[in-house]
Amino acid sequence: MLKIVVLGAAAGGGLPQWNCRCAVCAEAWSDPALRETQASLAASVDGRSWFLINASPDLRAQILATPQLHPREGSLRHSPVAGVILTNGEIDAVTGLLSMREGQPFALHAHPRVLETLAANSLFNVLDPAKVPRLPISPGEPFEPLLPDGRPSGLLVEAFDAPGKPAWYLETAAEAPKPAAGDTLGLTLTDRASGARAHVLLACAALTPDLAERLRGADLLFFDGTLWRDDEMILGGLSQKTGRRMGHLSISGPEGAMALLGDLEIRRKVFLHVNNSNPVWLPASPERAAVEAAGWSIPRQGEEFAA
Amino acid sequence: MLKIVVLGAAAGGGLPQWNCRCAVCAEAWSDPALRETQASLAASVDGRSWFLINASPDLRAQILATPQLHPREGSLRHSPVAGVILTNGEIDAVTGLLSMREGQPFALHAHPRVLETLAANSLFNVLDPAKVPRLPISPGEPFEPLLPDGRPSGLLVEAFDAPGKPAWYLETAAEAPKPAAGDTLGLTLTDRASGARAHVLLACAALTPDLAERLRGADLLFFDGTLWRDDEMILGGLSQKTGRRMGHLSISGPEGAMALLGDLEIRRKVFLHVNNSNPVWLPASPERAAVEAAGWSIPRQGEEFAA
Repeated sequence: MLKIVVLGAAAGGGLPQWNCRCAVCAEAWSDPALRETQASLAASVDGRSWFLINASPDLRAQILATPQLHPREGSLRHSPVAGVILTNGEIDAVTGLLSMREGQPFALHAHPRVLETLAANSLFNVLDPAKVPRLPISPGEPFEPLLPDGRPSGLLVEAFDAPGKPAWYLETAAEAPKPAAGDTLGLTLTDRASGARAHVLLACAALTPDLAERLRGADLLFFDGTLWRDDEMILGGLSQKTGRRMGHLSISGPEGAMALLGDLEIRRKVFLHVNNSNPVWLPASPERAAVEAAGWSIPRQGEEFAA
Repeated sequence: MLKIVVLGAAAGGGLPQWNCRCAVCAEAWSDPALRETQASLAASVDGRSWFLINASPDLRAQILATPQLHPREGSLRHSPVAGVILTNGEIDAVTGLLSMREGQPFALHAHPRVLETLAANSLFNVLDPAKVPRLPISPGEPFEPLLPDGRPSGLLVEAFDAPGKPAWYLETAAEAPKPAAGDTLGLTLTDRASGARAHVLLACAALTPDLAERLRGADLLFFDGTLWRDDEMILGGLSQKTGRRMGHLSISGPEGAMALLGDLEIRRKVFLHVNNSNPVWLPASPERAAVEAAGWSIPRQGEEFAA
């Protein structure tokens, strides 16, 4: 069985964002039950060894809040985290690596472009290369990550290029940067034993025909839910950038994720990487009702999905 | 009045550390009340604008847990955080900067050696230099950090070289690296109006006569409480490094902080940056009793001190 635990569901900054009092953040400052950490997943086929999908800046708090990831009794040093798979090089995907020090062995899988960024930032030298090998991901070539003791994990991972853009802190101009292969990966996770399959796209700027065919008939999909509408940041007075400029399809509208993904016979559909500006966070909002009526859910930290 | 809020009191890794089941971590995994985030302080003289002393990897959670640092009602984007003062370039001092994105203006004060490290790590480009000026600290030259609107803060800061060592991820050899000026700063904070004074040393490898004279008669001292005894990590099977090798005086023993700082007539003495291996974390331990009998306290997240 393929198990996926949501470590956090919010986009970069989390909910609330440290300096924001937009309508949704204001609610979250006054109601701690609304708060959410930044997007990351943990996947396992045996329930004992887990692979993180991205390492968010909230990783330390997420591990504390997730019993599946606590070190097991009987050992002085241990972690159920067997590896980390990065889908991009954004701050909200890589910063948590800095909280994975202390000599723990695990494998770090990322696209060569992201590995280059990590190599160029000396902070990541806290991860001892003898204990944390950095392994390049080749999109389109499925791989089975190994456990730290060298045994196969039973989890098959295939990365594929998702329509996207480079990490924001590597942008050099105010203009929309030119996307390049490897900037944003989608992942297809398969339990080798059962064949159960899940797809993860934390950022996705468009639904291409190839991507639609890949997702068709999936057991479980985690999909970019950053914005409700493309001009949400502008309308809210929060930024001058549209969703498209930031590399994200919106949830609503005729060209949004709900419309485009509605007919693909996907069993379970979950939005992830939901921005603090997005009204779907509010349980009583019409936007939340619309999302749920369309068969999607907005997950919370700690929620476990199985396929 | 000089106010200092403890945002976190634990050394790098926090309590519990993600992969550790040493005696103290094991208690903290089963009892959430014992948990503690990584060392950082917030200082203010007006109770409205705050200067962070170091930005720990737990910063986002620390801001959420600290009402003094929540954005004020009535503004869309705001933060009471007026600036950050770094005492070193370790992961547990700088990683929180990556959670201070989103265009918020504040000043970043650090020794030129630390600013060099930040400049060499492209991740920190998420902090827009137009909004987050990086200002060099000259040890021995007091400065009054400005508020983001340009007004003087009323807080006087003097940095001084503390006996220490370079950031661990910049070490190049297994041997103890040669300390250099600027590696570890101590801070003296003074309320310009009242003259109240506090000293902060999150790492300190020795008590020199100069340092002793500086600390004598202080209103408030936060001092390196990393280890209870110098061979604590070795005895616990956690590491081969002594406290001295890591750049830390120990709390106990004839050459420890309690003995050396006992006669300096300091009004309030607080240990900070306490490692997860340190038994003073356990409220019922004899080590905690000894610390308190000597007039020291072990602070917790959210505790506010005034001088």
